[in-house]
Amino acid sequence: MQFHHHGYVSGEPRVQNAAGTGIDRPADLPDEMDVLVVGSGPAGMLLAAQLSQFPDVTTRVIERRDGRLVLGQADGIQPRSVETFQAFGFAERIVSEAYNIAYMNFWGPDPENPGSIVRTARTEDYALKISEFPHLIVNQARVLDYFAEAALNGPGRIAPDYGVEFVGLTVHEAGEFPVEVRVRHTAGERADTERTVRAKYVVGCDGARSGVREAIGRKHLGGISAHAWGVMDVLVNTDFPDWRTKCAINAEAGNILHIPREGGYLSRMYIDLGEVPENDDHRVRQTPIDEIIRKANEILHPYSLDVKQVAWHSVYEVGHRVTDRFDDGDEGREPHVFLTGDACHTHSAKAGQGMNVSMQDGFNLGWKLGHVLTGLSPASLLTTYSAERQPVAQQLIDFDREWSSLMARKPEEITDPTELATFYLGTAEFPSGFMTQYAPSMIVTDAAHQAAASGFPLGKRFKSAEVVRVCDGNAVHLGHHAKADGRWRIYAFADAPVAGEASALSEWAAFLASPASPIVRHTPEGADADAVFDVKVVYQQGYDDVDIARVPEVFLPKTGPLGLTDWEKVFAAAPNAWTTTDIFDERGLSRDGVVVVVRPDQYVAAVLPLEATDELAAFFEAAMLPAR
Amino acid sequence: MQFHHHGYVSGEPRVQNAAGTGIDRPADLPDEMDVLVVGSGPAGMLLAAQLSQFPDVTTRVIERRDGRLVLGQADGIQPRSVETFQAFGFAERIVSEAYNIAYMNFWGPDPENPGSIVRTARTEDYALKISEFPHLIVNQARVLDYFAEAALNGPGRIAPDYGVEFVGLTVHEAGEFPVEVRVRHTAGERADTERTVRAKYVVGCDGARSGVREAIGRKHLGGISAHAWGVMDVLVNTDFPDWRTKCAINAEAGNILHIPREGGYLSRMYIDLGEVPENDDHRVRQTPIDEIIRKANEILHPYSLDVKQVAWHSVYEVGHRVTDRFDDGDEGREPHVFLTGDACHTHSAKAGQGMNVSMQDGFNLGWKLGHVLTGLSPASLLTTYSAERQPVAQQLIDFDREWSSLMARKPEEITDPTELATFYLGTAEFPSGFMTQYAPSMIVTDAAHQAAASGFPLGKRFKSAEVVRVCDGNAVHLGHHAKADGRWRIYAFADAPVAGEASALSEWAAFLASPASPIVRHTPEGADADAVFDVKVVYQQGYDDVDIARVPEVFLPKTGPLGLTDWEKVFAAAPNAWTTTDIFDERGLSRDGVVVVVRPDQYVAAVLPLEATDELAAFFEAAMLPAR
Repeated sequence: MQFHHHGYVSGEPRVQNAAGTGIDRPADLPDEMDVLVVGSGPAGMLLAAQLSQFPDVTTRVIERRDGRLVLGQADGIQPRSVETFQAFGFAERIVSEAYNIAYMNFWGPDPENPGSIVRTARTEDYALKISEFPHLIVNQARVLDYFAEAALNGPGRIAPDYGVEFVGLTVHEAGEFPVEVRVRHTAGERADTERTVRAKYVVGCDGARSGVREAIGRKHLGGISAHAWGVMDVLVNTDFPDWRTKCAINAEAGNILHIPREGGYLSRMYIDLGEVPENDDHRVRQTPIDEIIRKANEILHPYSLDVKQVAWHSVYEVGHRVTDRFDDGDEGREPHVFLTGDACHTHSAKAGQGMNVSMQDGFNLGWKLGHVLTGLSPASLLTTYSAERQPVAQQLIDFDREWSSLMARKPEEITDPTELATFYLGTAEFPSGFMTQYAPSMIVTDAAHQAAASGFPLGKRFKSAEVVRVCDGNAVHLGHHAKADGRWRIYAFADAPVAGEASALSEWAAFLASPASPIVRHTPEGADADAVFDVKVVYQQGYDDVDIARVPEVFLPKTGPLGLTDWEKVFAAAPNAWTTTDIFDERGLSRDGVVVVVRPDQYVAAVLPLEATDELAAFFEAAMLPAR
Repeated sequence: MQFHHHGYVSGEPRVQNAAGTGIDRPADLPDEMDVLVVGSGPAGMLLAAQLSQFPDVTTRVIERRDGRLVLGQADGIQPRSVETFQAFGFAERIVSEAYNIAYMNFWGPDPENPGSIVRTARTEDYALKISEFPHLIVNQARVLDYFAEAALNGPGRIAPDYGVEFVGLTVHEAGEFPVEVRVRHTAGERADTERTVRAKYVVGCDGARSGVREAIGRKHLGGISAHAWGVMDVLVNTDFPDWRTKCAINAEAGNILHIPREGGYLSRMYIDLGEVPENDDHRVRQTPIDEIIRKANEILHPYSLDVKQVAWHSVYEVGHRVTDRFDDGDEGREPHVFLTGDACHTHSAKAGQGMNVSMQDGFNLGWKLGHVLTGLSPASLLTTYSAERQPVAQQLIDFDREWSSLMARKPEEITDPTELATFYLGTAEFPSGFMTQYAPSMIVTDAAHQAAASGFPLGKRFKSAEVVRVCDGNAVHLGHHAKADGRWRIYAFADAPVAGEASALSEWAAFLASPASPIVRHTPEGADADAVFDVKVVYQQGYDDVDIARVPEVFLPKTGPLGLTDWEKVFAAAPNAWTTTDIFDERGLSRDGVVVVVRPDQYVAAVLPLEATDELAAFFEAAMLPAR
């Protein structure tokens, strides 16, 4: 964590100085704004936290509820989401309060007594090997609390406007604020009054029954299946020995997905309520909690639950729907309205994916809005949102459909009792959130030079590895330095010569300081040298063989009002006493050096040889606007 | 982190329910109180956080300053302190904002050009091998912030009374509140008015010029040396390559101890100002900051500092003093007034010990006050405070005197340039905070059975190791479950039979449930079974070979208003996919089983065979009072 560079900070370093619109932010929803986010769920609150890093952009988040979310809803947190929380500064805190999934157990009918269940398999959770981050369970309400804190502590000082409901919108062809939005106050003195506000961009984070989606006429395609599930968060006493372990239970009496929750006592159960008759007309949703508990006990036989408190429960029918396009744009027209999360993809809750994919929708869109609205990038950048995220949603629906139907099978349909476990582990990269790979576009190059950095696949998220920080010898995760501050990252992995010797790296550094440099071209006049691009270097040597006095100045920029040297951009790859990792080996990096460009949302945008300076400049010329 | 067992918690789980005096805590200092803490430094604020866990005790903390500490003072955090922070629930947060010491470098005169300094040695910091916790640098102000948060979030809802100064005290021979204390308001409407309050116990955490020490007539023995040091927290630009590494610099021009600080830019320098003439009369303390900076530049030659901002500076003369006894008691009389921290031990700042030892003073005293005041233990328990902590302070003074004089040597006095490094590393256990070993007393048994748990030395702090939690298969640090909640810990390490088989463990468990059990004897009627004693079991098998349904009930107590099973007291020693540690091997535990009793301040109190139930009962009979 870096601070004090604007002068000494005595208090909480996680609170950044207010800036721009954050300095005197009006308490009331204004008449005009740059971005209006509709809904304060995971995508909406991530957007709030991200756009708080762009304090020159006016961002408001409206929410129909009159305060924070209190109960229920999503709780599965994949490693990619924890990685995202790290970038927003709260991973260590949420990890310490969450349930960490170490194992998933599988239960089926006892062959000798099929009316009773027995444990058939134990599997280590996929998080074990796939990431440095764990696989967690924690209530969505807490995730939102942490994003709310990040939004409020950022320079933009963004807090949701609670008690304001979306009514409808009209996109005008012209004007500075082309989106006219009708809202209604749902609480406070102005309850039930309507008003009209105007925004440059509107983001619909308003859930499965999205009014924003309806307003722009996008279709939510797919259907509700004929299978119903009850879900409950309960405090119980039980003789079921896996109460604190994630389990899939396939009994003769039905199926349960069992998810222990944070705090050591509470668990969530998804209980199979069976096929829904065609003429049911959603009556299944009225199933009383007592019936859900009775069914759970029936499935768990010979074990039983003595329910002491029901914290939350619900009944739903499995639906799989995805919207055809996640914005209001078309061939001739750039988009002004976007859809995220459940507003454009809905599915069962049982793969623990919904909140995670929604957050990545927000992470994908947030920096793009920030860059376009601050003049760093052309508006065409915004077309990449739907192009990148719609296929991810389609993958999600496909995965979930397969997982849900595997989970909902009857025991007699199961030939191999370990099949579910095998599917779960074999597809680990997907539910971990790491399989997303964006196609080539204005912000992802083709794979011409991929071989020079085989462990950083283009279009996938930058997978961190440990390096040694030269200034202090600490082993740190290179990727964890990349905060969600809206900046591009350029990692220069050096060729073999030591710092200060003539090398491809030193020529590349000279290029970066030249007028042809993308940093020079695209960083606004008067801004810090690293305001838009955070450039870091990793030498192949050990940290004590890198003489920091001989490192090119571009890697030791002087920033902030005091013009202080930033010491934390120079790294060494060779292991020392604190790490056994060499990132060149770990990520298949060319010993001739290589440049890896990473987007503000942590996805790998370009892999280029040190010599390919023209290509580097051309890449940013396409993705950005000249700043001077 | 365990919560929800009093019903579902929607918000921040670190905020416990208010209880007892915390429910309606008066904003104003009352006339009578159980404990009055004088001073809100590290010892005082740790006491506040600890006593907040005893909400039936009225605790007030007075502080002359009118608000939180903003600047300066201590910053070295040894691993033992981070371990303590873990118990108070904020280690992960303070670690993420602190400077982590990976190396200490040593600089001396260049043999070929003695007016210039060169790096003579690099040493890995001692924290590398000695603990699972790091060695940190972070401002005392932040440490106090975190303790203040823990004090406020605890059931006692304790917040300091700022703007109230200690004037004097009188200890009366009798009465419910025998200590009469005169205080003066230093801020607000009542500024400069005096009043008298009464307390059962007073703790002087009021620094080197302690008024409480003076009031009870204790003597601070030792003297001020004739050596002066300037200290400054500065933001600079410099060509000194180790600006971000801890260094000891022994130049011909003098000595510097250089300590990088949190945030990536700020460092602290202790600069040798040389011998102080006998007739100086503390005039050296008036040394201007420009002179300190000039001297630093002279020592650093050929490198130089361009100081951009001085966040804080001071000048002091090295003093080594320790008070003969840390309370007002004597042979015939139990103590009512205690001294902690600088009030009873002062020394140089350069070994980074002061804040750490002060906090351990508070940790030692806090639970004892809590237990005596809630009737769990006899008042004689309080005599162990001075008996245990005074020798620690003496050790500290001796260590610091040696380290300070090594640091203050002239280059010509140094025969072996690596000597300082060797001393630093060779004594690692001391500055890490792990060498403290309390002598046998009413709360530490003799070493008769030490061989059954050689890795848990009696009187030393319980050194954690990883085990596997049976209920969910997670690898966790056994010691990290021991929160600073004022409870005793009893760890039963099982003999070889599996759970449910007849064994020494099962007989021990039966004893614990019997009327002769110390748990039964010393837990108040109506309190949770684990309200005073937190009993945990560690089986020798792997977690999947422990059938939790067959574990004795005493290890699965039902607690809280809902009577929910606590699943998190049963552990397995054999490694699984998530850990390679077997605690029996790692800590030299007898495979015949052994019981380890750990005090609320994390020190090992007793090591006993499973069969020694009478000894276990006798130990607690001496340390505690019968509860029913």
